[in-house]
Parts: sequence; structure tokens; C-alpha cells
Amino acid sequence: MLTRSEREKHLGQRGKVLWFTGLSGAGKSTLAIQLERELFARGFFAQVLDGDNIRMGLNQGLGFSEADRKENIRRIAEVSKLFCQAGVVTLCAFVSPTRDMRALAQSIIGAEDFLEIYVSTPLDICEQRDVKGLYQKAREGALPGFTGINAPYEAPEHPWLEIPTQRMNVGQSIEEILAALLPYIRGV
Amino acid sequence: MLTRSEREKHLGQRGKVLWFTGLSGAGKSTLAIQLERELFARGFFAQVLDGDNIRMGLNQGLGFSEADRKENIRRIAEVSKLFCQAGVVTLCAFVSPTRDMRALAQSIIGAEDFLEIYVSTPLDICEQRDVKGLYQKAREGALPGFTGINAPYEAPEHPWLEIPTQRMNVGQSIEEILAALLPYIRGV
Repeated sequence: MLTRSEREKHLGQRGKVLWFTGLSGAGKSTLAIQLERELFARGFFAQVLDGDNIRMGLNQGLGFSEADRKENIRRIAEVSKLFCQAGVVTLCAFVSPTRDMRALAQSIIGAEDFLEIYVSTPLDICEQRDVKGLYQKAREGALPGFTGINAPYEAPEHPWLEIPTQRMNVGQSIEEILAALLPYIRGV
Repeated sequence: MLTRSEREKHLGQRGKVLWFTGLSGAGKSTLAIQLERELFARGFFAQVLDGDNIRMGLNQGLGFSEADRKENIRRIAEVSKLFCQAGVVTLCAFVSPTRDMRALAQSIIGAEDFLEIYVSTPLDICEQRDVKGLYQKAREGALPGFTGINAPYEAPEHPWLEIPTQRMNVGQSIEEILAALLPYIRGV
């Protein structure tokens, strides 16, 4: 079987998983999608995994019980691991609100491949943006267990990187992530 | 978001899913692994998905009930779709014994991206090889529902390609697959 390092050599990069965590509306997917584009422009091969390509597919049918939320993260982490082992720079954007969930993801992916980015946009700003109208629904009681409103978000204690989008625009955020990331993925 | 065609252009290839079906011991994984290597040698980027990297990870905990077998194939198809849409030539090696299962996989992946390879090694030869000792266990009654022994294998009626390994060695099989496959994946 082809080894990971043969695959990485072919792509001219090292595989890693960037795990974006933060509240709904914090900007995780926006950053992941923009980062993917910037990585391609620099010759890297990357793949975003987020609600859009996971929830309706692989994780179809999973609900919001404790067990289902954990299974949701477990499958995402397993798929991320497959991509990472294939040599791909994998960009995961999921709320993943608890330390336990993220510890599970890290244990599946492997600590050396798991780079946690805390998108630390505060709740009031996420709620003001409310791009998908979810905060309003949650305030109206239509979304029980919605993170930040009626379920806790546990901030990472020692994230690999923190991106406070209330103080940095997308361009600045991407620059900061790239500066931190490139030493990890280049030079095979 | 980056389009599939931008991704394919970056890799210099088109994404496809080769779905190897056949009895246990027919040679599916052997062919997929060797094909992956040959594709790399020709500058393509490919990824094998088989029991080794799926069963212990993503599909951990699934059993052999009808529902679990279907869910097993559904998840594999969803992951294959992610790889294929990423532009990767994805090589899936799973018994997938029923037409229903393979129809499910095809419907998830999309008919235009799903290339079915029937590895048609006959039962008696698979049982003679018995690389993993599974046929012996099945004959002893220790593996209820084992395909070919006490559960049916439904051969594809119109596979994209048939590889009868009882009449072709690995090298010849790979040559035949490559000849059929290259027009589908090259020239982006």
C-alpha cells in the first residue's frame, strides 16, 4: 500500500487537519472556504469539510441528542483522518462546542495532525450577524440545545491559534492562519 | 467555494469512483492497491477505501444485520463522493453483494462518476485461496450470512468492467483497468 509520505511527496505538502471551532456565525466556514482558496493559489491541495457537505450526506439522520452529536463529530473526525492520511490539508468547520468532543476528534485524528483554531467571535456579535436566522429561532425557543443560547460553548483552553474576528477582518485572519500553517504543511 | 473543476484542474485529472465488487478473496483490494500505485506512477492522485481503513474507523460498531450492512455501504458511498468531488480517483473495494447496495452507492455517488468493476473470481477459487481463513470459518458455521456460503452474491448484470482473475494475473488485470480508466480521468 502506498505510504502517507509517498502521497505527501506527490502533492508536495504535508497533510494536517485544521479544526475550526466556535459559535454558530463566528465565521468558521467563511474562513475555511477562503483559506482553501488561498492554499490552492499557493499550490497546496486542501479540502473543506463543513455542515454543507457533511450534514446532508454522511451524517444524514443524526439528530441533536448527546449520543448523536458525539457520533456526528466522531464520523467527521474519521473522514478528516482519511483525508489527512491521504496527504490533504483538511479544513473542518464545526461548532464542536465541548472540550470532550474536540478531545475525541483529536484522539481519532492524532495529536500531531490536529491543529485547533478557536474562532472566538463573541456571542453578541454572532447573534447580531445571525446570517442563518438561527439565533432568532433559538431565542424563540424553536431550537432547544442551541449552542450559546440554551447550551454551553466550552472555549478551548490552549488552542493552536485563536482568531478573534471582531478585531480582524477575513483578509487579516487568513494571513495570520497562513503564517502559522505554512511551516506545518510545506517542505516535503 | 472552490469548484470541482478548479480542483480537478489543480490535480490534472478528473475525479471518479471505481467500485470493485466481488466475493471475499476475489482480489478486489489487491487490484485496488496495485492500481493506486500504478496511477501514482503515472502522475494521478488516487485513494483506496477498503475494509482496512473504513471498518475500524468510520464504520466501527456496525454489525451484519440488513440495516447495518446498508448503512455500511451508504457511509462508504458518501465518503467516496467527498473524495470524488474533491477530484480524487477513488478506489473502493467492498464485497457489496447485492444489486440494491450497489444501486444505493451509485445513486449517492452519481451515475456519471460511478464505475463498477466486477471482480468475477468464482467461489471455488476464492475458497481455495481463503487468504483470511474466512471461508473455513463460514463452512464451520461461525460466520452466519457470509457471502457465497450462506448468503447470496448477486453478480452485476452490466458492470462497467469485468475482471476474471482466474484467467488474468494482477499485471494483466491492471493493464486492462488502466486502458479502460485513463480516458475517463485524464485530459483536464
